Amino acid sequence: MQYRVLRSSKIKINRKPFSSRIRIQSRDGNALAAAAVDHDVAFLFGGQIKGGPLRLFMIYSAGNFIECTTDTPYLQIGEHKYGKPVLDRAISFDTDLYDALKIGLISMDSTMRSNLAVGLPIDLMLVRRNTYSTEVNYRIEPGEPYFQDLRERWSAALRAAHIAIPRPPYRSTG
Amino acid sequence: MQYRVLRSSKIKINRKPFSSRIRIQSRDGNALAAAAVDHDVAFLFGGQIKGGPLRLFMIYSAGNFIECTTDTPYLQIGEHKYGKPVLDRAISFDTDLYDALKIGLISMDSTMRSNLAVGLPIDLMLVRRNTYSTEVNYRIEPGEPYFQDLRERWSAALRAAHIAIPRPPYRSTG
Repeated sequence: MQYRVLRSSKIKINRKPFSSRIRIQSRDGNALAAAAVDHDVAFLFGGQIKGGPLRLFMIYSAGNFIECTTDTPYLQIGEHKYGKPVLDRAISFDTDLYDALKIGLISMDSTMRSNLAVGLPIDLMLVRRNTYSTEVNYRIEPGEPYFQDLRERWSAALRAAHIAIPRPPYRSTG
Repeated sequence: MQYRVLRSSKIKINRKPFSSRIRIQSRDGNALAAAAVDHDVAFLFGGQIKGGPLRLFMIYSAGNFIECTTDTPYLQIGEHKYGKPVLDRAISFDTDLYDALKIGLISMDSTMRSNLAVGLPIDLMLVRRNTYSTEVNYRIEPGEPYFQDLRERWSAALRAAHIAIPRPPYRSTG
């Protein structure tokens, strides 16, 4: 699975070289801490060098990292918990790339509903192994029809899903 | 809505008087910090004095609090983010009490799937306004049939829900 990056507007990444961003911690860390600014940061960094494997890393502020594998086929940064359950249930290494994109968007929808500080636009990029180019590079703006339809369908399906489950049979035992 | 407490085994609350728990911070705070133990704590505290309203509070470690209202009809403590989206979508002040219990259990299921450190048993208590007694006081242990069935139904429904949504139509735009 080559599912790569779903980044909300909350996560702003500038175009500075990667090493210079890591240096910010040592250069400005004390000043940021003094101003009580939370300056922890994590990056997703991925790609493919011709002839090599497609790889994706999550790099923590301390500089250590983990890598995407067949067992852990997705990585998240930022406000990740609200949107994780749907990924845990639905994403595996064998998931079709466009299904993975769809499930990633459902995950973003959950995050946006539970944290109003996360919102559109969503920039998405899709890269397939051994193509060395982007298959999709797209910005979802407010009112974009597919994403709006996805949000409504998902809401309706969840509502139907919990209505269909019987109520708990529990009555007092003590 | 009188939906009260869903507490996983991860959140252990002893039977000390409430004020003595707050005192732990001033008495042991430095020692706990020195040992790098995260000693933040929050409580749900609720009930009804005869003739008064049924009230529920969340009390933070600093001692400040918020109260459940018609606009914010649920409170969570502990590992709360994974299970919040389903509550946000489905719980309102007018939700039937047993539907709320059911949705609370779905929320706990999401949390248990996304954080393996959260698990059964779940102790649940259900108190209805003006009854001054518990309507349900129940422990869900591993293998409990209703909760197991709920987990399977919810999984199947979510799978069906995302399969029913069409794949994204996005193709490369640059």
